[in-house]
Amino acid sequence: MTKRDPEVIARLSADAMSVDDNALRALGIERIAVGPGSAKMAMTVRSDMTNGHGMCHGGFIFLLADSAFAYACNSHGQRNVAQQCQVTFLAPGKLGDRLVAEAYERHRAERSGVTDVTVRDELGAVIAEFRGHSRAISGSLLPKD
Amino acid sequence: MTKRDPEVIARLSADAMSVDDNALRALGIERIAVGPGSAKMAMTVRSDMTNGHGMCHGGFIFLLADSAFAYACNSHGQRNVAQQCQVTFLAPGKLGDRLVAEAYERHRAERSGVTDVTVRDELGAVIAEFRGHSRAISGSLLPKD
Amino acid sequence: MTKRDPEVIARLSADAMSVDDNALRALGIERIAVGPGSAKMAMTVRSDMTNGHGMCHGGFIFLLADSAFAYACNSHGQRNVAQQCQVTFLAPGKLGDRLVAEAYERHRAERSGVTDVTVRDELGAVIAEFRGHSRAISGSLLPKD
Amino acid sequence: MTKRDPEVIARLSADAMSVDDNALRALGIERIAVGPGSAKMAMTVRSDMTNGHGMCHGGFIFLLADSAFAYACNSHGQRNVAQQCQVTFLAPGKLGDRLVAEAYERHRAERSGVTDVTVRDELGAVIAEFRGHSRAISGSLLPKD
Repeated sequence: MTKRDPEVIARLSADAMSVDDNALRALGIERIAVGPGSAKMAMTVRSDMTNGHGMCHGGFIFLLADSAFAYACNSHGQRNVAQQCQVTFLAPGKLGDRLVAEAYERHRAERSGVTDVTVRDELGAVIAEFRGHSRAISGSLLPKD
Repeated sequence: MTKRDPEVIARLSADAMSVDDNALRALGIERIAVGPGSAKMAMTVRSDMTNGHGMCHGGFIFLLADSAFAYACNSHGQRNVAQQCQVTFLAPGKLGDRLVAEAYERHRAERSGVTDVTVRDELGAVIAEFRGHSRAISGSLLPKD
Repeated sequence: MTKRDPEVIARLSADAMSVDDNALRALGIERIAVGPGSAKMAMTVRSDMTNGHGMCHGGFIFLLADSAFAYACNSHGQRNVAQQCQVTFLAPGKLGDRLVAEAYERHRAERSGVTDVTVRDELGAVIAEFRGHSRAISGSLLPKD
Repeated sequence: MTKRDPEVIARLSADAMSVDDNALRALGIERIAVGPGSAKMAMTVRSDMTNGHGMCHGGFIFLLADSAFAYACNSHGQRNVAQQCQVTFLAPGKLGDRLVAEAYERHRAERSGVTDVTVRDELGAVIAEFRGHSRAISGSLLPKD
């Protein structure tokens, strides 16, 4: 297995992104898996993410989905940035729920990509669907060697 | 000025929402103004919102915009929830920047609304445009009397 | 096979929609298949759909995708209307191309649904990705009996 | 008034686009006005645009909005293409209605733009809100001289 292996590139890219990802750590987002064009992440809804009815602020659900999107679209070694994202809230996330986001690249062309993310609660019920549009920028996430 | 005054209703609705809004407090989001169908809020980019290049994670920009959206679409006393939101990232937010989000209701029909939010940095440059779709649910934010 | 069979309901629903669908006929959109939560349709790019460079006006690509979306989200017998749609244009459609749209329901809850549509050209290259949000309204597409 | 005048550039750009715009002519879309970053267009709902209940197929409302978007984002002389569009359907368009779309550029950076379009019926009621994302490509719409 050489470093050109897509799975290895995905892992190295994720490692490079994680080093300084303060936001991910602050939110307690856990990286479950990354692969070429995919990422799976989890976050437990804390009280400081709720709106007082014990419901997770939609913005934190977005953050979880957006993180999975970022790791999926950056999994090929090339740096990518989010351009435009859309999220549909289908059911509430509740205090204490462990939410899981799964991202899959739906389309990748020369410089632009479309990635879909589904967020589910502990019982597997879909609570949000997210679609992110990314654009490649200059710069690699991989170590030179 | 009676309680039926739209400006008063907007302020009372925002007060009711704020009481238990843990997320808003945790993020240090400041409510600058609310009115009928509008809201203006600010947030300073902290290190725990950045991704290691000193750039604000897009999800926190979304959170700020989403909060302004929530207060704007809930400003008429009737409870509303976000259904679907779309955000376009136009420029990065940087560590220490005080970002300001201004939300205006663009359309409001019987039960559904469309609200636009513009997020600017300290110099007034637009860093994100957000469009949120809300839906009225049962329940009032106003005290009974 | 009774009328309660989902496949039969999908076909009967599509037939009911087609009867007066002037737009579909005017555009020469061909219904290839419908099933429970799915639809496949084709349209050939005519000169009156182009913008002078022989490129299909994006709006007609939207129309094809939107039609597949409509037949997919109405395939359960219950009337549904489009609320909000988003389309990403990835490659141009060209004069004479036979474009094929495939729609799959991604999520369906009590009254709202999310349906994804992919539009491909003759060679199978993706030219557009579409996501539609539907809402059930009163009324059935099925004959009473 | 020189050709560098933004109003003149907008008119010349629109004229250049119109020459071969078969789709616009086929749909009977009328150009009411163009300016720097803006466009206003009208379309009357014909029977071949309806779905049998005398309701305009949402795709034709999209087409009208998309056309106004195209003329607005191409009004600076530089060629632009649509990348991603989102439309919210708020009320039905009816057979015979003369729909009017007004497009305004909300944001324009080096190569990308965000343009909002509102579609109203004859009585001024909003029937759709549209947001389009454009990207500049090489090529000018203006005559060389």
